[in-house]
Amino acid sequence: MRTDQSLIVPVILSGGSGTRLWPMSTPDRPKQFLPLTAAQTMFQLTAARTADRARFAPPIVVANARHAALIDQQLADIGVVPDAVILEPLARNSAPAIALAALAAPESVLLVMPSDHVIADDQAFLAAVACGLPFAQQDWLVTFGITPDSPETGYGYIKSGAALTDGVVAVDRFIEKPDRERAAAMLAEGGYCWNGGIFLLAARSFLGALAVHAPDMLAACQRAIDAARRDGTHVHPDAEAFGSSPSQSIDYAVMEKADRVAMVPVSMGWSDVGSWDALHGLADADASGNAVRGDVRLEGSAGCLIETDGIRISGAGLQDLIVIASGNEVLILPRGQSQEAKRFAK
Amino acid sequence: MRTDQSLIVPVILSGGSGTRLWPMSTPDRPKQFLPLTAAQTMFQLTAARTADRARFAPPIVVANARHAALIDQQLADIGVVPDAVILEPLARNSAPAIALAALAAPESVLLVMPSDHVIADDQAFLAAVACGLPFAQQDWLVTFGITPDSPETGYGYIKSGAALTDGVVAVDRFIEKPDRERAAAMLAEGGYCWNGGIFLLAARSFLGALAVHAPDMLAACQRAIDAARRDGTHVHPDAEAFGSSPSQSIDYAVMEKADRVAMVPVSMGWSDVGSWDALHGLADADASGNAVRGDVRLEGSAGCLIETDGIRISGAGLQDLIVIASGNEVLILPRGQSQEAKRFAK
Repeated sequence: MRTDQSLIVPVILSGGSGTRLWPMSTPDRPKQFLPLTAAQTMFQLTAARTADRARFAPPIVVANARHAALIDQQLADIGVVPDAVILEPLARNSAPAIALAALAAPESVLLVMPSDHVIADDQAFLAAVACGLPFAQQDWLVTFGITPDSPETGYGYIKSGAALTDGVVAVDRFIEKPDRERAAAMLAEGGYCWNGGIFLLAARSFLGALAVHAPDMLAACQRAIDAARRDGTHVHPDAEAFGSSPSQSIDYAVMEKADRVAMVPVSMGWSDVGSWDALHGLADADASGNAVRGDVRLEGSAGCLIETDGIRISGAGLQDLIVIASGNEVLILPRGQSQEAKRFAK
Repeated sequence: MRTDQSLIVPVILSGGSGTRLWPMSTPDRPKQFLPLTAAQTMFQLTAARTADRARFAPPIVVANARHAALIDQQLADIGVVPDAVILEPLARNSAPAIALAALAAPESVLLVMPSDHVIADDQAFLAAVACGLPFAQQDWLVTFGITPDSPETGYGYIKSGAALTDGVVAVDRFIEKPDRERAAAMLAEGGYCWNGGIFLLAARSFLGALAVHAPDMLAACQRAIDAARRDGTHVHPDAEAFGSSPSQSIDYAVMEKADRVAMVPVSMGWSDVGSWDALHGLADADASGNAVRGDVRLEGSAGCLIETDGIRISGAGLQDLIVIASGNEVLILPRGQSQEAKRFAK
């Protein structure tokens, strides 16, 4: 499909089950499709981040088929015309999703980006991509390491190895989500980054690594693409073939096993917006620490996150409370316990 | 209208602005018309309390004209046929309301009851009424004193005078809502009761007292009834005449000034349900002190009152929180601050 292979192809991954930011996010509209952090949705912000067509080709989106109409609408709203929207008939985790994109643009360098992360400093991100590009062009699988500022236990970590050049290091190893003690130790020791799930890699390199480390996955995805039904920009991989692929993350299937893996550490105001607490941290709060959106009346309260898309919320004397109203649902949690949202997202 | 003047005529007063239990209660449906404390509404429970037609005549209801349909429906639902529903064209406080009832049944003894109070022990109440009846028949204005169990500042108090007979005392004086210190002093001293606003009085005695202490009120109410429009059981007092009456409570207009005022102290599980905190105290709570009604999912929480008539509420890790959802409104307050409800009831 590609014509100008000097351009980086953005690959926007739209996964997620829509449980951690319930009730705003739901399986029908997971958080990347909601304007939670800005007037645009995180999906739109992700597409807009690589909209400079002097550097980036039109994006390939890989998404759940049920979100096709949302994707078309949200891209149209910001004037982005995708190269392809690959609509997964079922979820098989990130490695097969990226394999579908790589098979659709086998001669290109791909910038793989989750669509549900916030990056406050686009320029820092683009500079890091420029830093990594020569390595991707030389068959390295490049990951971007988020400079950690707290001992988070919700992310994987990446240990830096030898410096390859200014701003780029070899990856020593990947570390699964740690416990609090291990996270604190890594933070104290230094030389570790969070694994933000953003990758820059030549399609050819990635497919080559799959051939070595996950040949069944590669074969299944190749068959799914060969038998795909196409409808304008929509690509419908063959469901049976794709379903036969192992369901694995790119970290597990490839990155942890491949040899030439590089990391570009970057500070860019990154967040995976993985909870209402995280969103409260990102929101513009008033002098009392309240961040409020929608039809809310709040008196004598502090440290609260209150969002509603319809129902009117009235509160007084509230301290460090999260209140989220969407449709006919209201969720109420103390700050610091917002991981409880997913238990109600049934 | 009365035929058997040996029967007590229940006079059910339906006032209230519907702000303290907002958002459930509203001006269109104040709290007496809501099933807040039981399957029946407090208005229905009040009517049912005096449904023994061997002792009580059919009731006279005095209410805001906007609630006529609610009253008809709620009485019909419990099979109570009223003697009259006097529909006030505007609110003039309790003394004129009772005057309208007294003018409608001038030969009877009236049992005046607010419709928005809870009385858990009907038998104790009925026994107290029986105790007071001989005094009402002998021209005493009888009030019922609620035995206090805490230094409430939201009620008026009544000081006991000399005993008139077993269980009945003369009233020494009425005391306006006190501050906390004064309330505690009265509780410690003993001999004081809360003024529950329930009265037993011969219509003739009350009208006689009005003639002495509030002749303008009596004249205005007399003209309002003389010019009333009648429609089945509905009585519409003349608006201009009724509007010319002073707006005063029975306490202020009559009870504090009359000579023969008696009190029957009674412990009967009384509450004026004056706040969501009060309602929490009345509700059946679980072992964690949570009282929940409607579509509520609550995990790891304690001491909460959560009520909803539609919206689904999901909460975890909540402590001593009041959450009330009605229609498109949600109110959230810490327990102990439920007086804040009224600030939002606009």
